[in-house]
Amino acid sequence: MTNITVFGTGSFGSALANVLAENGHHVLMWGKNQATIDEINSNHTNISYLKEAQLNSSIKATTDLDQAIKHSDTFIIALPTKAIRDVMGRVNTKLNSKKSFIHVTKGIENESFKRVSEMIEDTIAPEFNGGIGILSGPSHAEEVVIKQPTTVAAASNNSELRQLIQDLFMTDYLRVYTNDDLVGVELGGALKNIIAIASGVVSGMGYGDNAKAALITRGLAEITRLGVKLGADPLTFQGLGGIGDLIVTCTSTHSRNFSLGYKLGKGEQLDDILKDMNMVAEGVYTTQSVYHLAKHQGVEMPITEALYRVLFEKQPVEKELKILMGRNKKAE
Amino acid sequence: MTNITVFGTGSFGSALANVLAENGHHVLMWGKNQATIDEINSNHTNISYLKEAQLNSSIKATTDLDQAIKHSDTFIIALPTKAIRDVMGRVNTKLNSKKSFIHVTKGIENESFKRVSEMIEDTIAPEFNGGIGILSGPSHAEEVVIKQPTTVAAASNNSELRQLIQDLFMTDYLRVYTNDDLVGVELGGALKNIIAIASGVVSGMGYGDNAKAALITRGLAEITRLGVKLGADPLTFQGLGGIGDLIVTCTSTHSRNFSLGYKLGKGEQLDDILKDMNMVAEGVYTTQSVYHLAKHQGVEMPITEALYRVLFEKQPVEKELKILMGRNKKAE
Repeated sequence: MTNITVFGTGSFGSALANVLAENGHHVLMWGKNQATIDEINSNHTNISYLKEAQLNSSIKATTDLDQAIKHSDTFIIALPTKAIRDVMGRVNTKLNSKKSFIHVTKGIENESFKRVSEMIEDTIAPEFNGGIGILSGPSHAEEVVIKQPTTVAAASNNSELRQLIQDLFMTDYLRVYTNDDLVGVELGGALKNIIAIASGVVSGMGYGDNAKAALITRGLAEITRLGVKLGADPLTFQGLGGIGDLIVTCTSTHSRNFSLGYKLGKGEQLDDILKDMNMVAEGVYTTQSVYHLAKHQGVEMPITEALYRVLFEKQPVEKELKILMGRNKKAE
Repeated sequence: MTNITVFGTGSFGSALANVLAENGHHVLMWGKNQATIDEINSNHTNISYLKEAQLNSSIKATTDLDQAIKHSDTFIIALPTKAIRDVMGRVNTKLNSKKSFIHVTKGIENESFKRVSEMIEDTIAPEFNGGIGILSGPSHAEEVVIKQPTTVAAASNNSELRQLIQDLFMTDYLRVYTNDDLVGVELGGALKNIIAIASGVVSGMGYGDNAKAALITRGLAEITRLGVKLGADPLTFQGLGGIGDLIVTCTSTHSRNFSLGYKLGKGEQLDDILKDMNMVAEGVYTTQSVYHLAKHQGVEMPITEALYRVLFEKQPVEKELKILMGRNKKAE
């Protein structure tokens, strides 16, 4: 059994910490919020993120970064995209041996357009970088923590690391498939949040299953176009980190991005919706990043463009849907 | 504007007849059930299939095969798989000029393992065969007929025919994309019914979004494996006739195959479920055909195999799910 550090005490970090502890590993979670840390240590719960879940009592938590780093050579990074550079930068100043970095963060950095593994690579000195991987796929934390059947992809350029991820997390309720396309799996996880918001929008407007399936499928097509341009394998988007994650995010009430879109579709204003949310809806920032990235790369992404105009130029959703449906005749 | 004959008076045939009529075409529907034919002609409704829909009043219907054939050179075939050979065989004996055949039937023939276009090719004399195509994708009839935004793929080996299908059906609520992979689009439409039943089973068992997304994604993977073996382009399964149709069938209450699976997951017996249904759940027959076809082709299809054992060998659903989740570690 291995020592493992989980950075981040949100819903997915907590659910994965629980899987690892159930598999017999010694898990230390690191976070900034003292109340959450105390709650995990004393009550073995994390009520603000995982309401009804009882976490494995062997899980420890700390706000002490030195202790977190010393605890293990295997780091699970479950932080929002916006926190990656800050936390990993601070971690880097304290490292004195090689660590493996397995992230589960689904976003793209604004302006730099970098994937999370690239942000980690930027911040961690090469001599301490023992490999970077991602665990991604259709895996709502709320269901993982109550042991509902779930499948995910473990991707890395490093074959030993993807094997390690598979070995660490696999259980009878969590099946882990390896995948050698890190770029594709990272992009799938990040870009799907755009389509999830758009899918929420059409549901909020009162449209049905055909419209939602159309958005998901044509959304997948435009995500794949951009992914291929950025070096991903198109077939990755057909897998767990692509369409799998897209489906679960677009059809589930658990999804923050879908909920945000749903409220937009009902006519609420973005600012009001964001004020009411206590969690991060990564898709809003991702839409902004990807809108500019797609323009820069010359890739046609009509759904992303329409959503960008709704989110950032206050265009009416009805008008944007009309534009999408009224485009020229195309081949698939 | 064109004359068009629609064979079949079920829900999808009626919804498409309505789209064509709304686009200004002269539509004659052919069917066997005199009451339905009279209802379409007199009331412009088809209540047993499309409860609340008012059909375009220009649509005519007949039980007279000669009249149906004489009416047009463009045939839309919206019949169950089991009726294709019989009706097309009878049509063939009466033909004296070339016709185009556009089918919307999602199945595979038992024992011969033939796709619907192959069955049409078998039954129509070459000198009268003006091309075969398919219209497929995420398009519940119940939503098409009330003009909800919908997207579909038009596939044929014949580029003029796929263009024709696009031109005939495209409206501001129905976007038609052309696709040159007839084999892939046909297989996507047929094979998805297997996964829809399986998806209903896990929902019926009380499992959540992660499990459903897992089934859809890994289901897509096994469908794609078989499709590629049979000559399809793997990327077709990423499109409207593949994942699009799969999503809509696996996440919608409109789907007969999903409902059948749901009842199986709740513990009902197949015979009792089939007795209660007034429509065809093609997926049951497709599972049987594809189970044998996959064995014959040496393609691994674990979900299809598990469902086959549930449907035809009365194996408990819990046992089969355990087998699926407990398989060896794999790459995607």
